[in-house]
Amino acid sequence: MALPTDEIRAFTGKVLRGGDIPEVYRTDRSGYVAAGEPEVLVLAADVDDVRRAVVAAAGAGLSVVVRGGGSGLAGGAAAGAGSLILDVSGLNRILEIAADDEVAVVEAGVSAAVLDAAAHRHGLRYTPDPASTAISTIGGNIATNAGGLRCVKYGVTGDATLGLDVVLADGQLLHTGRRTAKGVAGLDLTSLFTGSEGILGVIVAATVRLRPVPIDTITIAAYFDDVESAAAACAAVLAARVRPAMLELLDESSLREAQDLLGVRGESAGAFVVAQTDGFGARAEADIVAKTFGEFTSRVRTGSDPDAAAELLAVRRAALPALERHGRVLIEDIVVPRSRIATAVRRITETAARHRSRINTFGHAGDGNLHPIIVVPADDPDAYTRAVAAADEIFATALELGGTITGEHGVGVLKRAWLAREQGPTALRTQQSIRHALDPNGLFNPGKAL
Amino acid sequence: MALPTDEIRAFTGKVLRGGDIPEVYRTDRSGYVAAGEPEVLVLAADVDDVRRAVVAAAGAGLSVVVRGGGSGLAGGAAAGAGSLILDVSGLNRILEIAADDEVAVVEAGVSAAVLDAAAHRHGLRYTPDPASTAISTIGGNIATNAGGLRCVKYGVTGDATLGLDVVLADGQLLHTGRRTAKGVAGLDLTSLFTGSEGILGVIVAATVRLRPVPIDTITIAAYFDDVESAAAACAAVLAARVRPAMLELLDESSLREAQDLLGVRGESAGAFVVAQTDGFGARAEADIVAKTFGEFTSRVRTGSDPDAAAELLAVRRAALPALERHGRVLIEDIVVPRSRIATAVRRITETAARHRSRINTFGHAGDGNLHPIIVVPADDPDAYTRAVAAADEIFATALELGGTITGEHGVGVLKRAWLAREQGPTALRTQQSIRHALDPNGLFNPGKAL
Ligand SMILES: Cc1cc2nc3c(=O)[nH]c(=O)nc-3n(C[C@H](O)[C@H](O)[C@H](O)COP(=O)(O)OP(=O)(O)OC[C@H]3O[C@@H](n4cnc5c(N)ncnc54)[C@H](O)[C@@H]3O)c2cc1C
Ligand SMILES: Cc1cc2nc3c(=O)[nH]c(=O)nc-3n(C[C@H](O)[C@H](O)[C@H](O)COP(=O)(O)OP(=O)(O)OC[C@H]3O[C@@H](n4cnc5c(N)ncnc54)[C@H](O)[C@@H]3O)c2cc1C
Repeated sequence: MALPTDEIRAFTGKVLRGGDIPEVYRTDRSGYVAAGEPEVLVLAADVDDVRRAVVAAAGAGLSVVVRGGGSGLAGGAAAGAGSLILDVSGLNRILEIAADDEVAVVEAGVSAAVLDAAAHRHGLRYTPDPASTAISTIGGNIATNAGGLRCVKYGVTGDATLGLDVVLADGQLLHTGRRTAKGVAGLDLTSLFTGSEGILGVIVAATVRLRPVPIDTITIAAYFDDVESAAAACAAVLAARVRPAMLELLDESSLREAQDLLGVRGESAGAFVVAQTDGFGARAEADIVAKTFGEFTSRVRTGSDPDAAAELLAVRRAALPALERHGRVLIEDIVVPRSRIATAVRRITETAARHRSRINTFGHAGDGNLHPIIVVPADDPDAYTRAVAAADEIFATALELGGTITGEHGVGVLKRAWLAREQGPTALRTQQSIRHALDPNGLFNPGKAL
Repeated sequence: MALPTDEIRAFTGKVLRGGDIPEVYRTDRSGYVAAGEPEVLVLAADVDDVRRAVVAAAGAGLSVVVRGGGSGLAGGAAAGAGSLILDVSGLNRILEIAADDEVAVVEAGVSAAVLDAAAHRHGLRYTPDPASTAISTIGGNIATNAGGLRCVKYGVTGDATLGLDVVLADGQLLHTGRRTAKGVAGLDLTSLFTGSEGILGVIVAATVRLRPVPIDTITIAAYFDDVESAAAACAAVLAARVRPAMLELLDESSLREAQDLLGVRGESAGAFVVAQTDGFGARAEADIVAKTFGEFTSRVRTGSDPDAAAELLAVRRAALPALERHGRVLIEDIVVPRSRIATAVRRITETAARHRSRINTFGHAGDGNLHPIIVVPADDPDAYTRAVAAADEIFATALELGGTITGEHGVGVLKRAWLAREQGPTALRTQQSIRHALDPNGLFNPGKAL
């Protein structure tokens, strides 16, 4: 169960063993800690290191846990007994930016923030924008099909992914997809690896789509008396044919906490919505957003210079850190059909009361993607158990309203039982047969995702 | 090798045998004709018929060839000896339009044109728009991941597909995906079946995304001296951050033929481009398109009322029918990185000369997707052989320029050898292992797509 010393010498990157491996590798940002200690950590320096590590792990009877930034919220990168951790964050070169073709080729360890900054020098941007953009990797973003604030208009990570380089369980390097805007030759392997949470292979590089920086961006925020009117206002905006580039909702408690953290004596309200419009129609769309919001509340604010916009957005961005002051948080991630947002938020509030848990909800109203944040205060010994029960009730609500248990964070170790409830035996069996076809010996991330 | 009579009686839809099966089922719109006669034709009336047919075919040792509208251009639906044809065009109900959620649920046999018309009654539309929208089915569009004119802004069929119902090789019904805008639970089976050309299962229903009808649409056309300046003008438009909803290019001969068919004494030019902008920024974007085109030619025309727009677009739509007057046509479908469009068109012109073939090229300049149309006159006995040689050279050009052999028509029977050349052994092996995992006995469309 360990790598022979001469195999370790073959790596270009650093290799650590057993007790030398930092504790952080046993967990990710979900707080989940894997049982037992991982055997080996390979800090891969290049693709050959990745291939070598996969072959060596298979030979030594170790499983392979691929890790990018370790910012995941489902325990997917948490490594325990019997595993080799393959940290690919060191593969971090931008290989190419082809501005004319609006395409970039990057290694898996590059962060979306770094790529986006590089693209800006060509008048382009990389649109997928998880809030973790600076602490996660594009490989991890692709492996989780990460979302973000802009996906209501620009799509999720998968929508920007054109092709991948993947190291398979036998150490072979697979190229999927293409660098052209379109293409249908063969099965869509790129989408199969996107969101596969490290169970099918190691993503080592990606060809991604860039888009022009919008000519104009306008931010509109509004305070509502209750979640119902906020959700109705969001629906009315979309029915008015407006395609905001962002449409975010905070419930009453999230708003209050965020204002508190920012130290602003802001307006109190039953719900807060912040929207952005961009592109050539930004002004016309912003006017309609503001007018539509105005049918549901009198408290509408618009900012078109970057400072005013940043101020309106700051509240949204502060919502999570504000809650983290009160203890460990369970960050949930359900999606409901957009027409059910208000119902979902009400139900979550009831769940919180029933399980005596503090749950604040905010999220991407344009997509119906809600993040109920359950606080687990350190000084309340029973709080964690109640929080888990509340989370279960929230997943049940999502399914009952025609939604899903995860919109962007993935299944990892934490939601496996719920995956079966959402998708049923035929879908699970089909996924397992594909996993088995690509990884017959169960090398990659056993016990995760399915 | 035949179905027992009592099994045939179990179907709700009509079942035909051997000699009673219309000849058209041995082919599709590519002109390819399968060898031998199919054994059974099932005109499925509902999902149970589909399940029954799959199980019966497996029991009788027949292969299953799924057929939608039969409008395919790669021979995928062409059925020959030893096969049961499963015609699903009779599953043609729109099951639901949820306007608030911008979602529709349809059976596989519904045509995109019919769904689009139904969506319009809710102020919405179904954006994927293959030119065959009235003669193909959504099931077939999904099975080929069909493109169209609007994909440069709105994406291809797969981008509008949220979830599927699929009958698997063992007759089980699989549900994939979801009806919410986002979701990452489990492997992305929806994308795996999208573009799978009938080799993994039978799509019987789909949940698709609708979008608002744009508030405004403007059409801009321009005549250029040569393809180089037309391609440069298209690139300049995109570099000006404009996102046209359509950006189509015709070479000199396509333009002339189309004008001839329409009977208009139009302007002659080295290349013709027609663009559309839509949405709240349509006017501002159209102004920039026109101004940018104006830097490359003095002959720019703009139409914002529907009639003028229709006239500008008519030329584009006439390009294919115009050529079909001259004989059988091979409709090719390559994609190159956008920056290589002019090079590709020039190379195709050289190929035509070298192989003494008439090849006209038009296509989706915004995506780099070109359709070189090779005419095979009936009175030239050697023309077909030359056309095939020319097609091969065109595929080689696509790969050499960093592109792909098919942007929207698929591999079918006609491009299998080229798939291997494009993707290499590891990608092929990976796809074959997935095919085998889902269809271990090779029931679906043997000899096609891979
Ligand atoms: C403060 C905060 C904010 C967040 N905001 C968002 C948000 O807005 N939207 C969102 O979607 N998520 C968000 N997340 C969750 C997390 O950042 C994303 O899931 C992110 O995509 C994970 O990337 P990573 O590089 O950190 O991956 P890791 O945590 O290292 O790994 C995640 C999973 O992917 C696998 N994996 C990682 N790299 C590879 C690779 N190269 N090849 C194959 N498999 C791989 C791992 O095995 C694991 O299963 C947030 C997290 C935090 C802590
Ligand atoms: C005039 C003309 C214009 C065209 N324009 C375009 C265009 O603009 N863009 C474009 O992309 N294509 C275009 N095409 C090609 C063709 O229309 C598309 O490929 C279309 O998607 C095929 O749909 P269909 O229902 O006719 O499928 P079919 O031809 O019946 O089948 C196509 C393939 O899909 C499989 N299949 C069909 N239905 C199912 C199902 N329910 N489940 C599983 N597999 C299935 C078949 O086995 C076959 O392999 C055009 C064709 C013509 C003749």
